[in-house]
Amino acid sequence: MKKINPSLPKGTRDFGPDDMRKREYLFNIFKDVFSLFGFNSIQTPAMENMEVLNGKYGDEGDKLIYRLLDSGNFIKKVDKIEYKDYTSLRSKISKKGLRYDLTVPFARYVSMNRNKITLPFKRYQIQPVWRADKPQKGRFREFFQCDVDYIGTKSLVCEAEIIDLVYSLFNRINISDFEIKLNNRKILLGIAEILNFSENFEKFCILIDKIQKIGFQKFKIELKKNGFSSTSISELSKILSYKGDNNKKIEFLSKFLKNSKIGSDGINQIRDLIKVNNKFKIDFSLARGLSYYTSTIFEVIPTKEKIGSLCGGGRYDDLTEIFGYKDISGIGISFGIERIIEIMNVKKLFPNNILSSNNVLISYLSNEYMSKSLEIAKLFRKNNIKVDLYSDNGKLKKQLQYANNNNIPYVIIIGEEEIKSNLFTLKNMKDGSQKKLSIENILSKISS
Amino acid sequence: MKKINPSLPKGTRDFGPDDMRKREYLFNIFKDVFSLFGFNSIQTPAMENMEVLNGKYGDEGDKLIYRLLDSGNFIKKVDKIEYKDYTSLRSKISKKGLRYDLTVPFARYVSMNRNKITLPFKRYQIQPVWRADKPQKGRFREFFQCDVDYIGTKSLVCEAEIIDLVYSLFNRINISDFEIKLNNRKILLGIAEILNFSENFEKFCILIDKIQKIGFQKFKIELKKNGFSSTSISELSKILSYKGDNNKKIEFLSKFLKNSKIGSDGINQIRDLIKVNNKFKIDFSLARGLSYYTSTIFEVIPTKEKIGSLCGGGRYDDLTEIFGYKDISGIGISFGIERIIEIMNVKKLFPNNILSSNNVLISYLSNEYMSKSLEIAKLFRKNNIKVDLYSDNGKLKKQLQYANNNNIPYVIIIGEEEIKSNLFTLKNMKDGSQKKLSIENILSKISS
Repeated sequence: MKKINPSLPKGTRDFGPDDMRKREYLFNIFKDVFSLFGFNSIQTPAMENMEVLNGKYGDEGDKLIYRLLDSGNFIKKVDKIEYKDYTSLRSKISKKGLRYDLTVPFARYVSMNRNKITLPFKRYQIQPVWRADKPQKGRFREFFQCDVDYIGTKSLVCEAEIIDLVYSLFNRINISDFEIKLNNRKILLGIAEILNFSENFEKFCILIDKIQKIGFQKFKIELKKNGFSSTSISELSKILSYKGDNNKKIEFLSKFLKNSKIGSDGINQIRDLIKVNNKFKIDFSLARGLSYYTSTIFEVIPTKEKIGSLCGGGRYDDLTEIFGYKDISGIGISFGIERIIEIMNVKKLFPNNILSSNNVLISYLSNEYMSKSLEIAKLFRKNNIKVDLYSDNGKLKKQLQYANNNNIPYVIIIGEEEIKSNLFTLKNMKDGSQKKLSIENILSKISS
Repeated sequence: MKKINPSLPKGTRDFGPDDMRKREYLFNIFKDVFSLFGFNSIQTPAMENMEVLNGKYGDEGDKLIYRLLDSGNFIKKVDKIEYKDYTSLRSKISKKGLRYDLTVPFARYVSMNRNKITLPFKRYQIQPVWRADKPQKGRFREFFQCDVDYIGTKSLVCEAEIIDLVYSLFNRINISDFEIKLNNRKILLGIAEILNFSENFEKFCILIDKIQKIGFQKFKIELKKNGFSSTSISELSKILSYKGDNNKKIEFLSKFLKNSKIGSDGINQIRDLIKVNNKFKIDFSLARGLSYYTSTIFEVIPTKEKIGSLCGGGRYDDLTEIFGYKDISGIGISFGIERIIEIMNVKKLFPNNILSSNNVLISYLSNEYMSKSLEIAKLFRKNNIKVDLYSDNGKLKKQLQYANNNNIPYVIIIGEEEIKSNLFTLKNMKDGSQKKLSIENILSKISS
């Protein structure tokens, strides 16, 4: 066979043992916390029919969907190749694509299973997604997303619970320098109504999202360029620069929005939320772009580092409407799990003990002692101790090196003397000390 | 937007909450046991470059690889479309494919990381694979594989450990009616040498694998059809029908193979293995098809049901050679994890308590009590109790129905009376009984 240079597709990664220990540690915490809050896990297939994916992610997003070539003689049914219009050819020879996010497959799942599901339905989903994006630092073509949603409920208890969930989760992984910024799309719609730019609402949301990046002055210039009047820009500035706690902000804006029904609705929702859970900061400049959110929106932002949000989400009214399942309101939060892993790496928040996969290496110096070694391994494993058995007898130095490279804290050495005396050498790999002990003593030492 | 009928690609499945609880329960046991035996987890990307996948799975396998269409204007660079030769067009417009198994990506991983890895390297991998196969009962286009391998060691301790691992694993999931059938490719090569059909060895392996299915008589007819001589068929029959324990079988065959060096090697390997671990049954009719195995081969077969193997594997000499990394011997086992799930479903081996995701539902009868409900939820979760909060106040009947549908064993009802008296109604959903208790008493009742 021709020899092949082994390589990975651009923008993809292998996760080796050290990566996997960190990822599984974190994923398990996520799963634990989601489960404490009553969310159920679901998983959907990697591939979806293109009609499910098409048109859901805007023109730019659609281009980034990975498409699967139809099996067999895919070209047989194509009469004429239009070189200029590759998209038409594409739709003829590729009818499935890879999952681009977890939201659309979830909406598809809920719509397909509407008769089996008891509403409200609470699910979480941690799976990879694929995007044919240009790879760059921190941006991959395969990466994991982690979504948590309530569907089929309008109750504010969801908002209150999600805020608690965020705190529980970050508390468990020792990330404390963050705040939850919260706003309501209805408030933004109310502001647009009062300031007479309802027609330009989408543009307004896109611009307001940029404030953090471009600063307040440039934001005002951009508004002007886009035809917003000087009066409305000045009124808007007052709102966005208003300082005060949540109650003060709400009272200030409620006056401004008193003639807007939708705006007052938004105000009342935040007011009710404050009564049961006030662990967030109202930020009227939060818009969350062109998303499908219809009322509450929020983001979790680190307060010390200048990096983007750790997670974000909001309430939506019609996630499943496209699949013919109407009036199903819900609220979701998406955790930037890959970014959180990065931060934990930089801040060294992964505990040291997860880096060692094994508790002890049994190192035997001749194949004669294999049987005894297997017996000890079995005993230890019965006591839930992770045991590795070195499988290349003879070279002790190499075996100790192996223990070192694999972060194994203890080595039991089994040679002629040990077999005779029934006392085994226990080597502590951290300080290099060693002692001869009975198996029972070694077991109790390692167990403790 | 046009409405879409939500559908799943043929041969793929969603895993809902009940499925996921079972799968995660099982996967966690697998991970625990692998980890007790010193194996590390790795994961590789869903997509691989086609040059990595091509030619590894035989002509039939190659056809079943899912290929990704290149991004952008994929047809631009293609001058001429040969309608008859779609494979040539395919290789021009699709340079990546989906993972077809876990072995090739693992070999690619080891070869790429040869300078980082300490040999022997022990890994497990539980990930989905994709095959464009015809879907039928129990056969899917997306399914999980679960592989465990040692690489870079020739020690028989690996064989001994894998046998123990199989017992530990099936013991943990209460599957006990199985046996491990074991053979050695070198023994089969030795038999072929002595009986003068070495040139026909591949055909022999394929035929011998069919004995279980077609029976011994038909097997002999097939051998004859394929040009095996009457003498060798009769000699072979003697070997394959020989009854006795492992030691007797080995002694019988060692005489027959005494003039074959490779055959005697195989005999000695099994003889050495028996000394340290004899928990298997030698079966000279085990061949494991056209695989890359070079010595030990084994399969785990249920003894009561007539279903295929639960797992199988063997030792190989040159898994990574194709990627230019030579002389790396290893041994692997692959668990039929989807089949094991099926068996556990049929035999009801999943514990009942995993079917409930939540310990308690807090059901409040008016939004006024939301705040109190959130407070109780927080207290309970601090005590590691999984709490769901019903988010549609008012309709108690609907809330109890929700608890039932979600297998939630307890419901705490919070109404006006409860708030006044500070005693809360605890309803046992199993027997329907209810009591008024303080929160502390409810907590200790549910915790126990």
